[in-house]
Amino acid sequence: MEVSWEQSVTDSINTIYLLFSAYLVFVMQIGFAMICAGSVRAKNAMNMMLTNVVDAVVGSISFYLFGFAFAYGNSNPFIGTDLFALTNIPNGTYDYTFFLYQWAFAIAVTGITSGSIAERTQFSAYLVFSFFLSGFVYPVVVHWVWSSSGWLSPSSSHLLLGSGAIDFAGSGVVHLVGAVAGFWGSIIEGPRVGRFDSFGKPIPLRGHNATLVVLGTFLLWFGWFGFNPGSFDKIVVPYPNTTNEGNWSSVGRTAVVTTLAGSTAGIVTLFGRRLLIGHWDAMDVCNGLLGGFVAITSGCSVVEPWAAILCGFVSAWVLIGLNIVALKMNYDDPLEAAQLHGGCGTWGLLFTGLFAKEEFVIQAYNSGETEVVRPYGLLLGGGWGLIGAQVIEILVIFGWVSVTMGPIFYALHHLEILRIPVDEEVAGLDISSHGGNAYASQEDNYRQSYVQYMHIQDGPS
Amino acid sequence: MEVSWEQSVTDSINTIYLLFSAYLVFVMQIGFAMICAGSVRAKNAMNMMLTNVVDAVVGSISFYLFGFAFAYGNSNPFIGTDLFALTNIPNGTYDYTFFLYQWAFAIAVTGITSGSIAERTQFSAYLVFSFFLSGFVYPVVVHWVWSSSGWLSPSSSHLLLGSGAIDFAGSGVVHLVGAVAGFWGSIIEGPRVGRFDSFGKPIPLRGHNATLVVLGTFLLWFGWFGFNPGSFDKIVVPYPNTTNEGNWSSVGRTAVVTTLAGSTAGIVTLFGRRLLIGHWDAMDVCNGLLGGFVAITSGCSVVEPWAAILCGFVSAWVLIGLNIVALKMNYDDPLEAAQLHGGCGTWGLLFTGLFAKEEFVIQAYNSGETEVVRPYGLLLGGGWGLIGAQVIEILVIFGWVSVTMGPIFYALHHLEILRIPVDEEVAGLDISSHGGNAYASQEDNYRQSYVQYMHIQDGPS
Amino acid sequence: MEVSWEQSVTDSINTIYLLFSAYLVFVMQIGFAMICAGSVRAKNAMNMMLTNVVDAVVGSISFYLFGFAFAYGNSNPFIGTDLFALTNIPNGTYDYTFFLYQWAFAIAVTGITSGSIAERTQFSAYLVFSFFLSGFVYPVVVHWVWSSSGWLSPSSSHLLLGSGAIDFAGSGVVHLVGAVAGFWGSIIEGPRVGRFDSFGKPIPLRGHNATLVVLGTFLLWFGWFGFNPGSFDKIVVPYPNTTNEGNWSSVGRTAVVTTLAGSTAGIVTLFGRRLLIGHWDAMDVCNGLLGGFVAITSGCSVVEPWAAILCGFVSAWVLIGLNIVALKMNYDDPLEAAQLHGGCGTWGLLFTGLFAKEEFVIQAYNSGETEVVRPYGLLLGGGWGLIGAQVIEILVIFGWVSVTMGPIFYALHHLEILRIPVDEEVAGLDISSHGGNAYASQEDNYRQSYVQYMHIQDGPS
Repeated sequence: MEVSWEQSVTDSINTIYLLFSAYLVFVMQIGFAMICAGSVRAKNAMNMMLTNVVDAVVGSISFYLFGFAFAYGNSNPFIGTDLFALTNIPNGTYDYTFFLYQWAFAIAVTGITSGSIAERTQFSAYLVFSFFLSGFVYPVVVHWVWSSSGWLSPSSSHLLLGSGAIDFAGSGVVHLVGAVAGFWGSIIEGPRVGRFDSFGKPIPLRGHNATLVVLGTFLLWFGWFGFNPGSFDKIVVPYPNTTNEGNWSSVGRTAVVTTLAGSTAGIVTLFGRRLLIGHWDAMDVCNGLLGGFVAITSGCSVVEPWAAILCGFVSAWVLIGLNIVALKMNYDDPLEAAQLHGGCGTWGLLFTGLFAKEEFVIQAYNSGETEVVRPYGLLLGGGWGLIGAQVIEILVIFGWVSVTMGPIFYALHHLEILRIPVDEEVAGLDISSHGGNAYASQEDNYRQSYVQYMHIQDGPS
Repeated sequence: MEVSWEQSVTDSINTIYLLFSAYLVFVMQIGFAMICAGSVRAKNAMNMMLTNVVDAVVGSISFYLFGFAFAYGNSNPFIGTDLFALTNIPNGTYDYTFFLYQWAFAIAVTGITSGSIAERTQFSAYLVFSFFLSGFVYPVVVHWVWSSSGWLSPSSSHLLLGSGAIDFAGSGVVHLVGAVAGFWGSIIEGPRVGRFDSFGKPIPLRGHNATLVVLGTFLLWFGWFGFNPGSFDKIVVPYPNTTNEGNWSSVGRTAVVTTLAGSTAGIVTLFGRRLLIGHWDAMDVCNGLLGGFVAITSGCSVVEPWAAILCGFVSAWVLIGLNIVALKMNYDDPLEAAQLHGGCGTWGLLFTGLFAKEEFVIQAYNSGETEVVRPYGLLLGGGWGLIGAQVIEILVIFGWVSVTMGPIFYALHHLEILRIPVDEEVAGLDISSHGGNAYASQEDNYRQSYVQYMHIQDGPS
Repeated sequence: MEVSWEQSVTDSINTIYLLFSAYLVFVMQIGFAMICAGSVRAKNAMNMMLTNVVDAVVGSISFYLFGFAFAYGNSNPFIGTDLFALTNIPNGTYDYTFFLYQWAFAIAVTGITSGSIAERTQFSAYLVFSFFLSGFVYPVVVHWVWSSSGWLSPSSSHLLLGSGAIDFAGSGVVHLVGAVAGFWGSIIEGPRVGRFDSFGKPIPLRGHNATLVVLGTFLLWFGWFGFNPGSFDKIVVPYPNTTNEGNWSSVGRTAVVTTLAGSTAGIVTLFGRRLLIGHWDAMDVCNGLLGGFVAITSGCSVVEPWAAILCGFVSAWVLIGLNIVALKMNYDDPLEAAQLHGGCGTWGLLFTGLFAKEEFVIQAYNSGETEVVRPYGLLLGGGWGLIGAQVIEILVIFGWVSVTMGPIFYALHHLEILRIPVDEEVAGLDISSHGGNAYASQEDNYRQSYVQYMHIQDGPS
C-alpha cells in the first residue's frame, strides 16, 4: 500500500499515544488486585486475587469474541452486530490498538463488581458473571454512549436532546455499570458472616494488609493517567488538516484535572473522617482519592481545573455519606465498591452536566469547529439539554444493568452456586477452595525446617 | 549537524516508542523479583530478592562492557567484535536507546535462571554465573538470531534454509537460553532439602506469599507489552519513504496477539489443573498465563489473533505436562522456570514455524515489499524452510548454553562454591548469609517495645 | 485557531514524551511509599504510608495554588509572581503537561523529607511541613535554577560566573532540598526511642518488610527513567527549524548514563558493605543503587557513560561514609534520607562541575549551536566557571532550606506538635493515631472465625 510519510507519522503518533495509554489502563487491573487483596481477610486473599486474575483472562476472551463487536460493531443505535473475533479489523475506523484500549476498560468493569461480592462467593459464580458482564452487559452500554451510532452518544448524527450524554472516560459506562452489578450481587448474597451482630450493629472486619491497599491505590492513580487522558483516542489531527491543533493541550489538561479532583477528594475525606471517627485513617484517604477519580472521569476533558476541585470536594462527601447509609441499611460491600464507583460515578455524570465548559465540549466532540452551538453545563448557562442527557444515562444504566445482572445473580443464588456454605466462609475460602493459605511465615518455615533437620541427622531410612 | 525537521520527527517518534518500551521491559525485572520472592519460603526471601537486584546491576555492567558488543558488533556471523563499552555509539545503525532496550532484555535472562536454582545456592555463585550469562552466553545467541549479520537471522543477506529463524522477541533467544542455563544449574545442585522424601515422593514447599506472585505476574504482563510490541525497534518509516506505512498497525496487533495467547493459556491451565488436583489454584493460573506469553513471544508479530489462541491452548498443556514429568524425575525447580521458559519457549518456536502468515512475515522482515517470496508457516502452506530453521535454533540454543553454562555450574560445584551447606539451607539463607530475616512482625515490635518501655521507666543507667 | 499539521505533530510528540515521563515520575511516589513502609517497623507502617499519600495530595493542591507560580512565574530572578492556580495556562511558554511534570517533582521532595522524620512525628506536623515545602521552599529553588529568569539558571541571559549551575534533573533542586529539610527535622526531633543505648551505641531497629524495600527500589529505578531522560522537556525541535536534530539521541543517552551510575553504585556498595559488615546485605544494595541515581541526576545529560560509572563508584563510598558518620554522631534517619539524598546529591553537583562535556553542555543548554563558548567540566579543561556555580548552588540550597524549614520544625517542636509522646511512640503510631494495625494475620482470622462459628452454632440470640 502506497502511503505518504505524513500519514505514517500521524498514525504512528496516535498509536503510541493510545497504546501506552492502554498499558496504563491495564495497570489498573494490578491496582484493583492489590486493593482487593489487602482489603479482605488473610484467609480469603488467595481467592480474591484469583478472581482478579480470572476477571482479566476471561474478560480478554469474551471481549475478543463478542464484547468488542457488541460495543463498536455497526448497524443500529442499540447494539453492534459485526466485528466478532476481530474480523475485518483493522479497517479505516478501528485498529488493533483501539481494540486493546477498549479491552483494558472491559476487564476493569468486572474488577469493580468482584469487590462488592468478595469473601463469600463461589468461584464458579465469578466465571459466569464476569464472562457475561464483560462480554455483553458492559459492551452494550459502551455502544449506546461511546460508539458513533449510539443513541446516547455525544458525537452521533442524532444527538439526544440536541446534546447526547458526555461520559468522556466512563464514570457511568465503566464505574456505574460495575457498581450496579456488584450492588445486586451483594444484596442477593447478603452480608458476610459476622459483619453485623444480632442487633444489626456493624462489626469491623479489617482487611489484612494496609500496605497492599496503598500500593493498589497508587497504581490505580497511575493507571488513571491512561484512563482519562487516553480517552481522546487520537492526539494529532490527520494530515493535511490545518483547521485545528489536535488534542495535545487537552490531553495534558485532562491529566491535570484528574489529579486535582482526586487530590481534593483525598484531603477532604481525610479531614471529614477525622471529624467523624477521631483518627487519621489511611484507608479512608485512599478510598476518598479513588472516589474523586471516579467522579471526574466523566467530565475530565470538558471542565476547568477549578471545577475539578469542586468535583472532588463533593465526591468526598458523597462517599462518606453513602458509607453511613450502607452501614445503616446493613449493606455489606467489602470494598465499598457500590458506594465508591456507583455513588461517585453518579455524581460525576451530574457534575459534568452542571460544569462542562462550552469551548471544551466543542473541542472534544466537534474537533474544535467554530460555528457549532450545543448544550453545555447548566450552571455555566448551557441549558438543560446536557444535564438532561446525563440524568437519562444514569437511569438507563441503572435499569439495564439491573434487568440483566440482577437475574443472573438471582439464578446463581437459586441454583445454590452463588454463596459458599457458612462453615467454608468461616474457615476461609483459601483453605476450602484453593488448596491452602496465601501466606507461610518464617515461623512455619522453622517448624518445617526442624523436622527436616531431624530427618537429616537420622539419615534416610 | 544540519538535519531536516522531518528527520528529527522520525527519529524522535522511534526513540519514544523504543525507549518507553525499554522501560516496560525493565518492569519485568520487578515482576521477576516479586514472583521469585513470593514463591520461595520466607526464610529465603531476602536472598532471592538480593539475587534479582544483583542480576540487574551486574548485568548492566557486563552488558555495557562486553555483552552489547558480542551481540551487535560487526564482522562475522558468529560473534560481534566491536562496540565494547559503547565505543562508536551512536552511529548510523545503533543509538543509546537501542542499547537500553537490549540491556533490559539481557538482565531478564539471568532472572529466569535465578529462579531455577533458588533457595540453595551460594550468593557468590550468582555473581559468577550472571556476569558470564548476560555478558557472553546470551549475547552470542542474540548475534546469531537478531543481528543482521547473524547466521540464523531472518533478515541477513544469507538466509539459512532461505528463511532464517523467526524468533521475534525471543522465545528462544531469551527464554530458552535462561531456562537451559537454569536447568543445568538445578540438575547439578540437586533438589532442595526436603523436596522429595526417601521414596522420591514430592513434598510441597509452598512459597511464602501468594500476593507477591500475583503482583509479579501482572507486572510481567505489563512488561511484556514492551517486550513483544516493542521488538519492531522502529514504528515509523524514514523520511521520505512512501512505499510502506511503517509498523504502527503491526505493533498494535502484536500487543493484542500477546494478550490473547496469555489469557487463553491462563484459562486452560486453570481448568486443566482443576481437573487434575481438584481445586482452583491461583498460582497455576499465574504460571499458565506466563507460559502463554513465553510461547507467543517468538511469533507474536507474524501470526493472526486466532492462532494466538491456539498457541496459548497448547502451551498450557506443555506446562502442565512438563511439571508432571519434572516431579516424576525428582527435578526441583522452585519457580518451574525450566518447564515454563524452556518448555513453552520451545513450543513457541515450533508454533511460529507452523503458523507464521506470509503477509506478516514479509511485513516484519522485508519492510512490506511486494515482490518477496520466502518460507512461512508449514501448516499455512509455507513449506519446510521456516520450521527447519526454527528446529535448528532450538537445537543450537540447547547445545550452546549447555556447553558453556554446564561447565561453569559444574566448576562452581566442584569448587564447593555452588551449593550452601545443608544446615544453612535448613536454617534459611537470610539468617546464614544476609544478616537476618526479611520480615519483622508487629509481635516482634511489641516484644522490643516492651523492653524499651521498661528501660524508659527505669531511666538511663 | 489555524495551525499547521507540522505544528500539531511537533506539539503532540513533545506532549507524549513529557506526559508519559511525568507518569513515570509519579511512580516514584509509589516507590517512596513502599521503601518507607518496608523500612519502618510494622507498628508504624500505616502511619508511614498515610504520610506518603498525604504528601501527594497536599502537594498537589499547594503546588497548584502557589508552588508552580513561585517556580515558573515571571518577573524577577528570585521568585515567580504570576501563574497562581494555573491562571494564564496554557500560554506560549507553558502548557498543562509541563505543569504536571513539575507537579510530579514537587511531591517527590516531601517524600524524601518524610523518610528522615519517620516513626516519631505527629501527623499534623506532616500536613504543615509538606504544604510549606512543596508550596514555597522547593518552588523558590526551582525558580533560581530551572526557570529561564532564575539567577542560577544555566539558560538565562545573565549566566552566573558565565555559566550558571547545571542541575539537569535536580540532584540539588530536588534531592538536596528534601534532604536538608529532613536533616533539620530529624535533628530537632532527636533519634527514635531505643535507637541508641545509654552509651550512644546504635541498636538496629530493623524495617519490617525487606520485600517492600526491594519493590520500592525497583519502582524508583523505573520512575527515574521519567525523572532524568524526561527533563529535556522537549524531544523534537519546532518546525521548520533545521539547525539541529532535537534531543532524541541525548534522551536515550541520559537513560543509559542513569542506569550505569546506579548499577555501579549498587555493586560497589554491595562489595564495600560486605567487607565492612561481613554479609551480603540486600538493603545496602538498594540504598547504594538509589545513591547512584541521586548523584547522576544533576549531570545525566552532559556526561559520557564512562563518567557515569565513576560517578556511581564515588557515590557508593559517599553513602557508606556518611552512614558511618551519622551513627557516630547519633543522628537517626530511618530511611538514611539525609545521607543518601543529601550526600549523594551534593556529590552529584560537584561531579557535574568536574566532568560535564563541552559538546553535551552546549547541546543541552544552547540547542546545539555551533559558535558558543561556555564553561564545562573542570577536569576536562572547562575552567572554574561551572564548578564555581555548582558550589554556589550547594551553599545556597543548604542556606535557604535551613533558614526556612529549620524555623518551621523548631516552631512545631516548641508548640509540642512535632514529636509524639514517648509512650505512643513505643506503642506504635498505628495504634495510637490511626485506629489500628496495618496487618491482620491468618491467625487473627482464625481467632475471629472461631468466635463467629460458635455464634452460628448457638443461633442468633
